[in-house]
Amino acid sequence: MSSVEKYITSIPDFPEPGIIFRDITSVLCDPEGLKLAIDEMTDLAQGLDFDMIAGLESRGFIFGMPMAYKLGKPFIPVRKKGKLPRETVEASYELEYGSATIEIHKEDVPTGSKILLVDDLIATGGTLAAAAELFGKVGAEVVGAVCLLELAGLHGREKLKGFPVRTVVCYEGK
Amino acid sequence: MSSVEKYITSIPDFPEPGIIFRDITSVLCDPEGLKLAIDEMTDLAQGLDFDMIAGLESRGFIFGMPMAYKLGKPFIPVRKKGKLPRETVEASYELEYGSATIEIHKEDVPTGSKILLVDDLIATGGTLAAAAELFGKVGAEVVGAVCLLELAGLHGREKLKGFPVRTVVCYEGK
Repeated sequence: MSSVEKYITSIPDFPEPGIIFRDITSVLCDPEGLKLAIDEMTDLAQGLDFDMIAGLESRGFIFGMPMAYKLGKPFIPVRKKGKLPRETVEASYELEYGSATIEIHKEDVPTGSKILLVDDLIATGGTLAAAAELFGKVGAEVVGAVCLLELAGLHGREKLKGFPVRTVVCYEGK
Repeated sequence: MSSVEKYITSIPDFPEPGIIFRDITSVLCDPEGLKLAIDEMTDLAQGLDFDMIAGLESRGFIFGMPMAYKLGKPFIPVRKKGKLPRETVEASYELEYGSATIEIHKEDVPTGSKILLVDDLIATGGTLAAAAELFGKVGAEVVGAVCLLELAGLHGREKLKGFPVRTVVCYEGK
């Protein structure tokens, strides 16, 4: 497993008993952890043919923007509904209680664009699947997803069949 | 004025009549705009003696993280209340309707740390002032703030007296 793992804080029974919360903010507050995380995520993007990086609000912004800067790619923020001022397209996904909607600016993603999705974590995969649907609506194509962490016990990959999904640190549990 | 300005989209009468919304997402979706923005913000940080970069949720994450990566500094996400899993300190500020609370992880900011605040925009200065108060509570000191945009007509600088405030693009209005 990647040496990024030692910078991750595991918090048992948060937010409820039986759940181990994996906290990535302790990676960021160490400059070596931060550099390792971004460099390893960027390495995982090698071999994928993409022309834009899309980061999912808000921890996807944290990892996606340095990757875009480093690779000289444009960055598309995938935002929660209601925050983008120009014309948007949207997609919804289920949460444990209720649902959520995400959006992108329609004109910022040309038809045929090849998108790399970036987020901190793959849990159930619901947000990443909704993001892939969103880019499909503007005629773009998701060609891969890179996340720092994966909770394999939640089987998020099963929702993400159409493109490679790469993660730096994979935990077996939930 | 900086050549970043040409990448900013100005949207009249959003979110209400008489307001010109300055949209930074169009800077990000051009790789040259993105690089210019990060490089010019990083240049503005020169000469300030800081050991951590703090980005304000969520657009401060977009600009603060590439700066931290480029400069080899740790990054502290200043988050809206309820999102950080470990022990936090908090500060509140007034909004047009009601108030908001922001937090940091207490143990991630050692006493005596020198903090550079990063956000997309200085408007009324309320969030940045609250962030400065927050770091004061853990015995750290804000030594500067760097933002991409400034709406000078809202006089945000008047709330931020204790440290230099530097912005790439300054609009005279609100």
